[in-house]
Amino acid sequence: MTALTDKVFMVRTGEVVSVGTELLLGQTLDTNAAFLARQMAELGISSYRHTVVGDNPHRLEKALGQALDDNDLVITSGGLGPTADDLTFEIAARIAGLPLVKDPEIDRDLMARFPDRDYGPQSPYPSLPKGARAFINDQGSAPAALLFLVWRGEKKALLMLPGPPDEMEPLFLNRVRPVLETLCPHRFIHRYIRLFGIGESAAEARIRDLVENQDQVTLAPYASLKEVVFRISQRLEGEGDEDRTGPLVAALLERLGDYVFEVGPRPMEKVLVDLLAERGLSCAFAESCTAGLASATLASVPGASVVLKGGLVIYQNDMKEGLLAVPHEILHREGPVSEATALAMARACEARTGADLNLAITGLAGPGGGSPDLPVGRVYLAIAGKGFEARVQGFLFSGDRDRIRTRAVYTGLDMMRRQLLEG
Amino acid sequence: MTALTDKVFMVRTGEVVSVGTELLLGQTLDTNAAFLARQMAELGISSYRHTVVGDNPHRLEKALGQALDDNDLVITSGGLGPTADDLTFEIAARIAGLPLVKDPEIDRDLMARFPDRDYGPQSPYPSLPKGARAFINDQGSAPAALLFLVWRGEKKALLMLPGPPDEMEPLFLNRVRPVLETLCPHRFIHRYIRLFGIGESAAEARIRDLVENQDQVTLAPYASLKEVVFRISQRLEGEGDEDRTGPLVAALLERLGDYVFEVGPRPMEKVLVDLLAERGLSCAFAESCTAGLASATLASVPGASVVLKGGLVIYQNDMKEGLLAVPHEILHREGPVSEATALAMARACEARTGADLNLAITGLAGPGGGSPDLPVGRVYLAIAGKGFEARVQGFLFSGDRDRIRTRAVYTGLDMMRRQLLEG
Repeated sequence: MTALTDKVFMVRTGEVVSVGTELLLGQTLDTNAAFLARQMAELGISSYRHTVVGDNPHRLEKALGQALDDNDLVITSGGLGPTADDLTFEIAARIAGLPLVKDPEIDRDLMARFPDRDYGPQSPYPSLPKGARAFINDQGSAPAALLFLVWRGEKKALLMLPGPPDEMEPLFLNRVRPVLETLCPHRFIHRYIRLFGIGESAAEARIRDLVENQDQVTLAPYASLKEVVFRISQRLEGEGDEDRTGPLVAALLERLGDYVFEVGPRPMEKVLVDLLAERGLSCAFAESCTAGLASATLASVPGASVVLKGGLVIYQNDMKEGLLAVPHEILHREGPVSEATALAMARACEARTGADLNLAITGLAGPGGGSPDLPVGRVYLAIAGKGFEARVQGFLFSGDRDRIRTRAVYTGLDMMRRQLLEG
Repeated sequence: MTALTDKVFMVRTGEVVSVGTELLLGQTLDTNAAFLARQMAELGISSYRHTVVGDNPHRLEKALGQALDDNDLVITSGGLGPTADDLTFEIAARIAGLPLVKDPEIDRDLMARFPDRDYGPQSPYPSLPKGARAFINDQGSAPAALLFLVWRGEKKALLMLPGPPDEMEPLFLNRVRPVLETLCPHRFIHRYIRLFGIGESAAEARIRDLVENQDQVTLAPYASLKEVVFRISQRLEGEGDEDRTGPLVAALLERLGDYVFEVGPRPMEKVLVDLLAERGLSCAFAESCTAGLASATLASVPGASVVLKGGLVIYQNDMKEGLLAVPHEILHREGPVSEATALAMARACEARTGADLNLAITGLAGPGGGSPDLPVGRVYLAIAGKGFEARVQGFLFSGDRDRIRTRAVYTGLDMMRRQLLEG
């Protein structure tokens, strides 16, 4: 067991081991694994597996051993905090055959930031495996640690990160990643083509020959409620290797261009904010069944305040008349979920907010309230604004309440985007 | 290799193996694993690990083998669809030493529902390992399958589910779970105590002696932005065993009762909707930095329309005057992010919507725009309504934009809840 400083050690493969019984019981979503997977992909570290284990010393030790068997780097997330079920450092020390010791720099930092904190009699401050490099956690108390060890005769690296995402992410990006970069020999190019308005199966049917004839540049699809994405990947073989993803990107754009809203990393809401900002236009929302989800989605983009004026949430029907001044006659004759009401909502939103582009959403998200004439999932989307032709479209979305609301929001954002490009 | 119908086979342990390169690359979140973990916990199936692998036949075969080594039941999610990288059935057949065959019932169903669908020349309809029990997927085309096999001399079960959550969840609940229940001998009792307004470390410090003296009834904490939850678990040892979780629940309530908003499964938004409905009261929101997230969160609860009237999203400052009629003098003198403006927003919301209980949120979510006087994370929450004392409170939330907005929303919902209990 030696603490290595060997410059020749290179990280080519990595596995994330997420630690926490709450993950195994499905009480929390493992967002850290997704973040760390994206980071490894950017660093050119190939990952073939991801494992989740509970706060159990025996199971954690076994999972770490299996991960070290198959990888150069193992990254743990969780199990570092001050509570009694946090035991990652202890298990790491046991695996490496090293004692647990205090880190004076970490202790000084914690004493300065948490002078009154009571960590309990046994463990006033964390103890780390001897020789591990510690990284101060500016957002919390549990530090990260990087330990080099020899496992079954091979050099390995074990990176231990805290579990709370708002601590782990800045700690990884600001302090840990620069160190990891010095250990990574390969780089990958990943390019992303993002589509909306077509399903995964239909999109792939149009490019099946490209998927079947992959060589060094690979193509893979994935789909969510928000988009269908094709990922084009190429591993760079050394310094002189050049980007050879261009022809595949061009082929996809030729066959699926009608549905492509982004070639790159931006989600729909960011594309829309940027498009509005470029043109110096503002927007607003009048939402019924989505109850603010469309404007909240747009506002999740930093800087959205440049384009988003505001909106109205009209959840009960009397609010459509009261708050939004949709004519009583239209509501009464056509019903609250109808083309005419959606259009009247969009126009009233324009009148109330003065925004350039206004989206109205009215529909039935369920689970109750459906009828043969007006089934659950029926949603009308309407757009109105200065210099844009008013338009309204009806949809029938399938699935549960959350799915219907999310599909309604993204379909509406895509309508706005198309309107801007056409209008 | 035999297709078992043996009644003695019992499922005590299980592992989820999620299949998809998009998961390994962190492009999508593995929500299926969390859903299936909760289902296994309810069925009394102990789970000690969860694994994610890419769409790679060799890696998938290895992961399935390791999972079968350690568990009675292995559940795969993903890799069943019509696209070229879907290969779970093929690998399962190879592992079990069985041929792939068509299932006439599945084919008939798919032909009826998708008469025009082109699955490609090689695979018009899915082929399943021989002897597997197929389950029709009402929401999509890929069926689920349950296969019994002998693995290293022991009986095992392999359940293969499709990847899209809106297909997998109803398929599991409606068709698969009743079959699994007949294979599960144990039951667990899980009780959940949900807190807001106290951190995980502080909460656990108050009950450390209870955590350290666990016997057959166990106690474990976990925390998210929305709540801190203590899970109390007991495995029932046979028919006659009784619920022994009561004393621990009582001890937690005694020590932490001030922060407890629920003993049970309901999240904050559901607790609030139920409380308003019980009292026959309505609510509305005036949101600035959260831009509709509070009302959208409340509206995520089925049946929220009984209590949620609507709201106003006031993102740009001129909207605070225009849409909401906050007095210009207050805005100008106190600034848009201030106690006075929050209070004026809540009162204006009451005037505009007529709702019984009105929450206003104004703050600075960042990342830009902060100053020493008004740092990023500063949020004011105010409540106004008939029969309630108007109140306003200032907060300084840490973390990124998403975190600040989510904390603001849940802190606001908790203020409304407390107001209802007190007022």
